[in-house]
Amino acid sequence: MSTIVQKFGGTSVGSTERMKLIANRIVEEKKKGHDIVVVVSAMGKTTDTLVQLAREISSNPSKREMDMLLSTGEQVSISLLTMALQEQGVEAISFTGRQAGIQTDSILGNAQIQSVDTSRIRNELDKGRIVVVAGFQGETSDGDISTLGRGGSDTTATVLAAKLKADRCDIYTDVNGVYTSDPRFVHKASKIASLSYEDMLSLATMGAGVLHPRAIKYAKEHQIKLFIKSSFEKGMGTLVSVEKQSHSEIYVIGVAFKENIARISISEFEDGDSLQAKLMLELASRHIQADIYKQYFNNVLTVLIKEKDLQDVLSILHKEKNNLTYRNLEYENGLAKVSVVGRNITSHPGIKEKVCKVLLKNKVKVKLVGESSISVTAVVEKSEVYIAAERLHAGFGLDFIVTEQVHV
Amino acid sequence: MSTIVQKFGGTSVGSTERMKLIANRIVEEKKKGHDIVVVVSAMGKTTDTLVQLAREISSNPSKREMDMLLSTGEQVSISLLTMALQEQGVEAISFTGRQAGIQTDSILGNAQIQSVDTSRIRNELDKGRIVVVAGFQGETSDGDISTLGRGGSDTTATVLAAKLKADRCDIYTDVNGVYTSDPRFVHKASKIASLSYEDMLSLATMGAGVLHPRAIKYAKEHQIKLFIKSSFEKGMGTLVSVEKQSHSEIYVIGVAFKENIARISISEFEDGDSLQAKLMLELASRHIQADIYKQYFNNVLTVLIKEKDLQDVLSILHKEKNNLTYRNLEYENGLAKVSVVGRNITSHPGIKEKVCKVLLKNKVKVKLVGESSISVTAVVEKSEVYIAAERLHAGFGLDFIVTEQVHV
Repeated sequence: MSTIVQKFGGTSVGSTERMKLIANRIVEEKKKGHDIVVVVSAMGKTTDTLVQLAREISSNPSKREMDMLLSTGEQVSISLLTMALQEQGVEAISFTGRQAGIQTDSILGNAQIQSVDTSRIRNELDKGRIVVVAGFQGETSDGDISTLGRGGSDTTATVLAAKLKADRCDIYTDVNGVYTSDPRFVHKASKIASLSYEDMLSLATMGAGVLHPRAIKYAKEHQIKLFIKSSFEKGMGTLVSVEKQSHSEIYVIGVAFKENIARISISEFEDGDSLQAKLMLELASRHIQADIYKQYFNNVLTVLIKEKDLQDVLSILHKEKNNLTYRNLEYENGLAKVSVVGRNITSHPGIKEKVCKVLLKNKVKVKLVGESSISVTAVVEKSEVYIAAERLHAGFGLDFIVTEQVHV
Repeated sequence: MSTIVQKFGGTSVGSTERMKLIANRIVEEKKKGHDIVVVVSAMGKTTDTLVQLAREISSNPSKREMDMLLSTGEQVSISLLTMALQEQGVEAISFTGRQAGIQTDSILGNAQIQSVDTSRIRNELDKGRIVVVAGFQGETSDGDISTLGRGGSDTTATVLAAKLKADRCDIYTDVNGVYTSDPRFVHKASKIASLSYEDMLSLATMGAGVLHPRAIKYAKEHQIKLFIKSSFEKGMGTLVSVEKQSHSEIYVIGVAFKENIARISISEFEDGDSLQAKLMLELASRHIQADIYKQYFNNVLTVLIKEKDLQDVLSILHKEKNNLTYRNLEYENGLAKVSVVGRNITSHPGIKEKVCKVLLKNKVKVKLVGESSISVTAVVEKSEVYIAAERLHAGFGLDFIVTEQVHV
């Protein structure tokens, strides 16, 4: 009998009505004769509500207590979804991360799974039960509840799929697959029927929010077939798996973007390399994500961060001014990053120029252009990001892609 | 160093603002040099909200999944209260029931504590930390989360006090002690400074909601001094402890009442004793509380239950009509029970008569009067329960009781 892991995100279990719909889908799959393990996130805005409660009490709550608090969100989901399954007449049982045998390291708030003892899950599957596991959480060797950080439920699902030697891992979400760009804003974006782990990772890294990079990396390592599907619509979704030969020629996969970006430009410094290195360390130690670009021609270091981190980064820069040896900085927010994502981008020197040309032709103001092996990224005004994405999508021939069908 | 267990109910931790107030009180006690273990309930209406979610999914959810669901309420409380304590600069740590070493039997939804391994709590106390424990919950030997049923947090607190050999157990609630009647409705009710476990148990059994009977029984067995205090006001509260000689003469302690009562009267049956026994078994197996009175003079069996159980009991009676061998029944709701509570009531035959006389004189319609060793109970219209309680309180000389002061 084959095992399938199904993961449902917060929107999919956002209300008791939705839980009942989800329960139908799970039972359908169960009736095909599979062993089913379901991984769920917290309901809708539960996590935000809990974070808000903590903020009312402390501006800097301890990580252990935050994990104690946030892990309740998934615990509510698993119990309710299991009730919905039982209501359909199937046998089901819920497990917290700990009960599912998930042991993590002790980096509370951002823990990594270290081992999984699947014996309790396997035991319940053998009894014919659907096992519903709380995503995003585990237990440390000290017996503390830990959470896995952003995208944690995706990680729980892929790790369980690997440990249970599952046939596949279905990631149910509020979109019906992976697209060449975000179809809510880029209307000619088309669904990608199948893509490689590497390409999925590139899209996710540059802003496609459908799947967390950490989960993709894990799936790749263990060659877990991932299907991205809609919780609410029927349809094939997108298969993420080992690369097929036929895909190797395409070098642009899609256009991704991230909004609410702020820029800080630092100038008049003594040693740019040392400044960059020190700043990267400072930010990493505070878990602040940043892209740092050095423009040699005018001796400016540009830091791109999320708007919400702007005040923190400015105060770090202010405090460390002497240590970082710079004299001037200026900043702005209300920006966005739009990226043409592909493979071996730096070995196709035409791409960067084409990005600039397309945006220039469409009168999109470009603040900065950077490139990496997987993307060319332009920083633009937030108000122009959708038009920029749409034009780049057309400009790189993505409007006309016909996707192949994959059958499960 | 002495250990004190403090228990805070749902109203006391009903908001983050209240949590901060509670944290102040706990820190005050800690600064006196005690080891402090805090037991908390779920915030305000959290449990009701969770029950409502479950009802939206299933009319009869599995007990295991209900316990999984409901136990999150206390988990939210312990993490937030611990953050509030840490925010005051003291060291604190939260424990779920399982982490606190509380093992229960497998009667999910109404579990009893079987053993407590206090080593983890003791270890944290020895480090100088305040330990905040989730009330109402534990873990079965199968590793499932269990809840203790009504009054569960009181039980957690008294059990921990016994196992930790605590000096005392402070039960913080929204009233500032135990009263001769409910002071919200009986304005001349006065606070009782000190009373015995037995008398507290009698009051609680007859309707004084301040402390759960199961917790009182446990405290009595292990001679845990209980202090009932207000979470929000300063003051002495009420001491519940081993009986003092001086109390033995008082035979009326107070007037308690329970509202929302329904009455079912069964008549024309063959064997009253057998009917009563069978019915008691049927109701007990469904966890429905009932008082059953047999009136010999007219061959009627009267069953008093909570209004919310009326439909269930009627359908049991209907289904089992042949087995229970009765022909007629009639019922009404909108009733209340009011009880004069004391000791050796049946050996003071004047009490029952006096209850009737007082109510008659005040034109309160009495539906039924029953007595036990701890009370004389009159069933009255719900609309007349407060006036009945007030008049009985006066009639039994309780309006003029001056309570003694106890010093901790």
